[in-house]
Amino acid sequence: MDFSAGATVGTYDPAAFRGLPFHTAVEQFRSGTDTPRDYLERCLSRITEVEPTVRAWVTLRESGAREEADASTLRYRRGEPLSPIDGMPIGIKDVLETKDMPTEYGCPAYMGNFPKRDNAAVWALRQAGAVLVGKTVTTELAGPEPGPTTNPFHPHHTPGGSSSGSSAAVGASMVPAAISTQSGGSLMRPASFCGNWGLKPSRGAINRGERQTASTTAHGVVAACPEDMWQVAIEIARRAGGDPGWPGLRGPSTPPPSRKPLTLAVMETEGWDRLDERSRGTFDQVVRQIEACGVTVLRRSDESLLERFERALVGATELTSAILAREHLWAFRDLVEAHPDRVSTRSKRFFIDTAESLGAAGYERALQDREVVQAAFAGLGGVVDAVVAPTSTGPAPEWFGDVAGEEPALWPTGDPVFNTPSSLLGAPAVNIPLMAIGGLPFGLQVMGQPGTDARVVAIARWLGEAIAPVSA
Amino acid sequence: MDFSAGATVGTYDPAAFRGLPFHTAVEQFRSGTDTPRDYLERCLSRITEVEPTVRAWVTLRESGAREEADASTLRYRRGEPLSPIDGMPIGIKDVLETKDMPTEYGCPAYMGNFPKRDNAAVWALRQAGAVLVGKTVTTELAGPEPGPTTNPFHPHHTPGGSSSGSSAAVGASMVPAAISTQSGGSLMRPASFCGNWGLKPSRGAINRGERQTASTTAHGVVAACPEDMWQVAIEIARRAGGDPGWPGLRGPSTPPPSRKPLTLAVMETEGWDRLDERSRGTFDQVVRQIEACGVTVLRRSDESLLERFERALVGATELTSAILAREHLWAFRDLVEAHPDRVSTRSKRFFIDTAESLGAAGYERALQDREVVQAAFAGLGGVVDAVVAPTSTGPAPEWFGDVAGEEPALWPTGDPVFNTPSSLLGAPAVNIPLMAIGGLPFGLQVMGQPGTDARVVAIARWLGEAIAPVSA
Repeated sequence: MDFSAGATVGTYDPAAFRGLPFHTAVEQFRSGTDTPRDYLERCLSRITEVEPTVRAWVTLRESGAREEADASTLRYRRGEPLSPIDGMPIGIKDVLETKDMPTEYGCPAYMGNFPKRDNAAVWALRQAGAVLVGKTVTTELAGPEPGPTTNPFHPHHTPGGSSSGSSAAVGASMVPAAISTQSGGSLMRPASFCGNWGLKPSRGAINRGERQTASTTAHGVVAACPEDMWQVAIEIARRAGGDPGWPGLRGPSTPPPSRKPLTLAVMETEGWDRLDERSRGTFDQVVRQIEACGVTVLRRSDESLLERFERALVGATELTSAILAREHLWAFRDLVEAHPDRVSTRSKRFFIDTAESLGAAGYERALQDREVVQAAFAGLGGVVDAVVAPTSTGPAPEWFGDVAGEEPALWPTGDPVFNTPSSLLGAPAVNIPLMAIGGLPFGLQVMGQPGTDARVVAIARWLGEAIAPVSA
Repeated sequence: MDFSAGATVGTYDPAAFRGLPFHTAVEQFRSGTDTPRDYLERCLSRITEVEPTVRAWVTLRESGAREEADASTLRYRRGEPLSPIDGMPIGIKDVLETKDMPTEYGCPAYMGNFPKRDNAAVWALRQAGAVLVGKTVTTELAGPEPGPTTNPFHPHHTPGGSSSGSSAAVGASMVPAAISTQSGGSLMRPASFCGNWGLKPSRGAINRGERQTASTTAHGVVAACPEDMWQVAIEIARRAGGDPGWPGLRGPSTPPPSRKPLTLAVMETEGWDRLDERSRGTFDQVVRQIEACGVTVLRRSDESLLERFERALVGATELTSAILAREHLWAFRDLVEAHPDRVSTRSKRFFIDTAESLGAAGYERALQDREVVQAAFAGLGGVVDAVVAPTSTGPAPEWFGDVAGEEPALWPTGDPVFNTPSSLLGAPAVNIPLMAIGGLPFGLQVMGQPGTDARVVAIARWLGEAIAPVSA
């Protein structure tokens, strides 16, 4: 991929794109025809090749990763890998603490922050033998202010955010998988824009360790294939558990096999009217294919419980942002008092203005409003196996930075309207890289009831296998 | 209090003891007849006097506290105090991060740990103008391994734990209030042993910031009087809110006035059989006084819902310990791998052995068992205004350290059997320093439904006013 020559710019084809799978390499590791070290070297070469344009990484730890890959190589040679992801090169979003790399949250105020301890998921990955390649770029404080990362399929477009680097690194085939987080749309939207499989698990399913900052936040995984996506998630959960008070990700210790659903529902959200014609037409083609397979697909006019859910979702993005901003308020104010000039204006506006106008009573009302949305979604549980929707309002928009003299863009990394429902509901959601618009990825999402992560992944895998990718 | 001469050892009298109130000094600050700086100097003198024996502090920051007290003095002089606790000298349990003091968790593995950021409650206290005197001793990792602190009323006895230093500092009149935390019995039991008023709030009521380590943990306040106890709690909650997803402490911005309840219930727990005769007789005298005031006091034989609750509580301490240990497992294993010789054997046994024998499935069952206890307690909500119980199985036991060659004591800081219910239930609980046994404090606790903190405090204040202290 030589962006300077434009060789592959705008040429994403979901039918042909494979990314970098890992699970298919394990047999060769066992037989000795490939090794984790060689796999890592291919990743590092690819990084050297495309990183100057993609800019997915804040920190790379080549020598540490090489040592870990060599140790993994030895374990396979002895027939004693620690887990199915032993030797997997993986990227960690730079909001998770890591004992051997700084954690800077994409924010100048945190430059050099180095707490020298591991987040729960990072600790679990090390226990499973994964090879930590480095920290991936996050938008500032996982909010709306973009980092330097570009879309791996066209450098003039956003990779999405906040998990910009994780999704771009996987989309650019630098690593097979990366850890992302989502509080509003921070995992799913970049996964849609970068052609990843992405799992935003149920609330509490993966232990967030020290980073229990917001009630909507989840740690999740983006990967080139559903097998690796699930395997990384379950290996973390089996070792670090869920958040305190939650049982942790439920499901099998190997990827759930694909399952054809009986009934799906289309979730429109307020985003339906913001889809451009080409994106909506592409999504509709996917839905027609699902129906042609004999799956019932309900639209909001077909089912009053679905109509009730859609009505409850009106304002979901503002509600999610308000909850999120309020829950960050004290920490954000503390940070800005200490470093008034080292936090962006966009972040200040998002975190402080939103939260202060809400107030404590407004926050309590917001929590109650969220319960209403959750109840409306729970009401769908007996009627549909899962809901499907576009993961974004279209492919990644262009982003060249704010324009001097104009009002700064609200969402430079794309509109989260299709993503906030899963965060607000604490519901598991999977992005399937099944569509393309103008040579850029555009994802299909599946969302299910909280706690049914394995079933949602099984349905997503069926969709990935049964439905022909659509490009427009 | 000259321990070396034994002058006041074993002479606690709940009818006479006053400790160090703060709210009564505010009027003098306003009029200029006293100042926050003078108040602080009296605290520091007292610390100099008794700290060599009590050993309540890990870190003292006299010069920083003096600067803050001077700034507070100026604010009162201008008639612009930041809050009703502006100028209050306060201690912070050394499990909360503080930007200007190390945070060492009472554990050699954390010696010198200095993350240079504030916990949410610490940030809020600074915002309210409180004067942070220092960090108070915690048992190792807030678990069963004791620190050096002694009981302020007799140095041969434990102050209780894990919030040993906070309770001892308040009991020894070194400061008017301190921040404690409780996951099992870590706030209430030391409050009972040290003659504090103590508030262990409802789950989620006070934002724990980075320290959301366990699902049973709460930050709370110990103080010499109920007014200061409530004021500190509400000032924190008004600024930092509750935990993410929780509305935060509900209640008035000034201490709730006392309210006489209609109906109380005695909670026995398995601890009832462990009360020595003198302690049980003292508690019974208190109950008879409550009845004499016209309040109905139900015993388990009077009410089937209460009997159901008591049955659900059987095993509550083991259940609480199991949940707690499992939720700390990954972090604890990480710590012990890095510092195998810098964590006590007692802590290893408590955190690792308990959690590993539980397993992930056992943890999920434990969460379900907890829901059963919570449902049984909720069933009491319509029948009684609050429950009352001894806060401990008696006064503070003696503690001279483990005996070589003998099995280490399980609970050197005292039996938590009367404390684990409020942690398991996420229920607000208040310790009232109303009794003494052999010249040592012995507390009465009031516990209410989650979210009714202000009502529980109001009932506790009524008990504190209407019931004559009992010494035996």
